[in-house]
Amino acid sequence: MTAASGATSGAASGPAPGSSPRPRRRLSVEQRREQLIAVALDFFAHHAPEEVSIDDIAAAAGASRPLVYHYFPGKQALYEEATRRAGRELAGLFDEPQVGPLSERLHRVMGRYLDFVDAHGPGFAAIMRNGSASSSPGTGAVIDQVRQAALDAVLSHLALPDPSPRVRLAVRSWIGNAEITALAWLQDEKGRFSREELQLALVQEFVAQLLVVLVHEPGLAPAMSGWLAEEQPDGPAGLLLHRLVALLGDGPLASEGLRLVAGDPDTTGGTTVG
Amino acid sequence: MTAASGATSGAASGPAPGSSPRPRRRLSVEQRREQLIAVALDFFAHHAPEEVSIDDIAAAAGASRPLVYHYFPGKQALYEEATRRAGRELAGLFDEPQVGPLSERLHRVMGRYLDFVDAHGPGFAAIMRNGSASSSPGTGAVIDQVRQAALDAVLSHLALPDPSPRVRLAVRSWIGNAEITALAWLQDEKGRFSREELQLALVQEFVAQLLVVLVHEPGLAPAMSGWLAEEQPDGPAGLLLHRLVALLGDGPLASEGLRLVAGDPDTTGGTTVG
Repeated sequence: MTAASGATSGAASGPAPGSSPRPRRRLSVEQRREQLIAVALDFFAHHAPEEVSIDDIAAAAGASRPLVYHYFPGKQALYEEATRRAGRELAGLFDEPQVGPLSERLHRVMGRYLDFVDAHGPGFAAIMRNGSASSSPGTGAVIDQVRQAALDAVLSHLALPDPSPRVRLAVRSWIGNAEITALAWLQDEKGRFSREELQLALVQEFVAQLLVVLVHEPGLAPAMSGWLAEEQPDGPAGLLLHRLVALLGDGPLASEGLRLVAGDPDTTGGTTVG
Repeated sequence: MTAASGATSGAASGPAPGSSPRPRRRLSVEQRREQLIAVALDFFAHHAPEEVSIDDIAAAAGASRPLVYHYFPGKQALYEEATRRAGRELAGLFDEPQVGPLSERLHRVMGRYLDFVDAHGPGFAAIMRNGSASSSPGTGAVIDQVRQAALDAVLSHLALPDPSPRVRLAVRSWIGNAEITALAWLQDEKGRFSREELQLALVQEFVAQLLVVLVHEPGLAPAMSGWLAEEQPDGPAGLLLHRLVALLGDGPLASEGLRLVAGDPDTTGGTTVG
């Protein structure tokens, strides 16, 4: 931090996010357009769309209102462009080298995802909820693209030659789970539940969902065994399995677990569910 | 089926849903209002809001266009009222007597939920996505109310004196999971994945999520033990635990499971995650 910026941040009332005065300078057409989108993204990340005006964005960009309208027909267009950028950024967070234990890769992805949620607060909420007055078919597509990119990325990490419908649905469920959990955490639980706790829980829920799939698709066992072979005992999957086995094996759930496990529901008649 | 209706349904082109001709008859103000809402609900259940016109609803209700406008200022108001009704119906599906094994109660709830999704198709999608041109803050609140009702209902079945933030978040995640899974199933996977398979998988994912919570909150063990005590070996939870223990115990994952479980990550140093 320089002395100058230190002096500024020490002032009683700092500038609002995105509203730091910028000197008017001559920008190229493309530079100006990018600058307006960046300023808008900053506003929409910290305020609900209906709370943001073109005047706010113009002032923060050191531009005139007519100049903003020269580049964008209105707030909706600027919001959609900013949302598309945010969506691309969010989708890009799922890019992760296919190296090392699967659960640690997803742990890094979820770390970046929660950083994004943390930094973009209301903007993330607006993209996810799509329920604001400014929502439109245009922004609806953004979240679909993020979900598709996330699905493709996670499936590529699973590296199955032909993922079954059940695997695909489990991955989509988990992505939805991550979205809604992050949103709920942001809105209500942030003070009571740390980012790191949430990050670990989300990855372990993925592992748990894979186990549920495996229970119905025994053919997935070799792949699952391959994933587990790379896991570390102190990684997200290792910790989960270690503690689960302890709970069900000789821990507090052993006697109930044993009773349920003793019978063989697959060969007895009268099953209530298939 | 009566001979008359048989003759009608045998015609080359039957009436579209909701458009069966109704004789004009004198209805009370309240009856007429309810009838218009019912007809609108039927339309919005089978078509995206932007595909439905006031003329469609008037024709199907055997009413004039001005009469519809006498009751509702426009399509948006009628859509919002129909959506509120659908939301109340959806929230009501989570009412379930607190009797019998927990996983079987949730299995019944998910059965009704998926019936609703199946019957209301595009209407459910519109409520959930909130991304249509007709979405508004008014309809945004509907889905929040459904989620809150679902959260309250599931928590009441758990019957914990003071559910922890982690338990609450896990339940909210699961509700989000059910929404997004049902939506994905409706749109893409319905042909490849039966309603019954999905119903069972959703309940087992709930059990799996509770197990993930338990791994981090050992204090939940007595309650979990109490829930399991009521479970049947051939119920959703019993089947899951039976097969999980088999997989990890002496099944194809035994050797990898054993390796991960052999170390004690809780007491060794150098953990990568907490």
